[in-house]
Amino acid sequence: MNSEFVNPFLSSFINVLQTMAQIEIKPGRPSLKKNAVAHGDVSGLIGMVGATAKGSFALSFDEKLALNVFRLMVGDTLDKIDDDIIDMVGEITNMVAGGAKRQLGEKGFEFDMATPIVVSGISHTIKHQVDGVKVLMPFSSEHGNAFLEICFNE
Amino acid sequence: MNSEFVNPFLSSFINVLQTMAQIEIKPGRPSLKKNAVAHGDVSGLIGMVGATAKGSFALSFDEKLALNVFRLMVGDTLDKIDDDIIDMVGEITNMVAGGAKRQLGEKGFEFDMATPIVVSGISHTIKHQVDGVKVLMPFSSEHGNAFLEICFNE
Repeated sequence: MNSEFVNPFLSSFINVLQTMAQIEIKPGRPSLKKNAVAHGDVSGLIGMVGATAKGSFALSFDEKLALNVFRLMVGDTLDKIDDDIIDMVGEITNMVAGGAKRQLGEKGFEFDMATPIVVSGISHTIKHQVDGVKVLMPFSSEHGNAFLEICFNE
Repeated sequence: MNSEFVNPFLSSFINVLQTMAQIEIKPGRPSLKKNAVAHGDVSGLIGMVGATAKGSFALSFDEKLALNVFRLMVGDTLDKIDDDIIDMVGEITNMVAGGAKRQLGEKGFEFDMATPIVVSGISHTIKHQVDGVKVLMPFSSEHGNAFLEICFNE
């Protein structure tokens, strides 16, 4: 898995948060460590299946960022993660993966996305069971923090 | 989604726990409620992509069952969910989905599985973002409890 593969997910995430919530989120230093673990309070997960590779994609938000995205997108102020936030995280995960899928398709790499799953629970951890490379990218903003993870088995 | 589709997952889960850990786990009453939510302490998730349908599969263990399966499979007694338990849950999820995939393939329904993701965090919840039917099946045993969820968008 090379950077050509990772960048569409990063740029798609930055773009979605900018477009939907006017939040400027900044990528930090990526980690390729095998045991790196993403932490989050609410996470959207999508399985991906291509002709030659399979993988998974996760987008984890801390509670602060999730509540702020909701406030800026919808206009309602919530004080904890509820069903509306969970659905919003599922939508955003779908949009980010869909944007990356389009960009990768233009480069000749086609894959299908499974349906998103959203996990919520304060400070849960996510571990992708993949033998191949895992890229874990932290993101930060004044409105809260996120982790993005992409893993493929080749 | 009909029962023909669900049963291979249920029988595969019962079979895997029986074979790997000599645990007899009993299915409870299934729920088709749209807002039913699985709770668990450690969950394995797999995205599924077929020619005409997409979906997701989740297997959530309470801590007690996860520790007991590990003790009975591996022989070591642990007192909390650690990396070994997380990997074991990923393996079991893969085995259960793989067993169901084989049975469904024999009936003419082929799908590809993405790679598994394991989420841990005491009492997290899982919500599948699917428009179609969701089946949530509770399981119980003297060694602890589990939830199995299957969702497809048709």
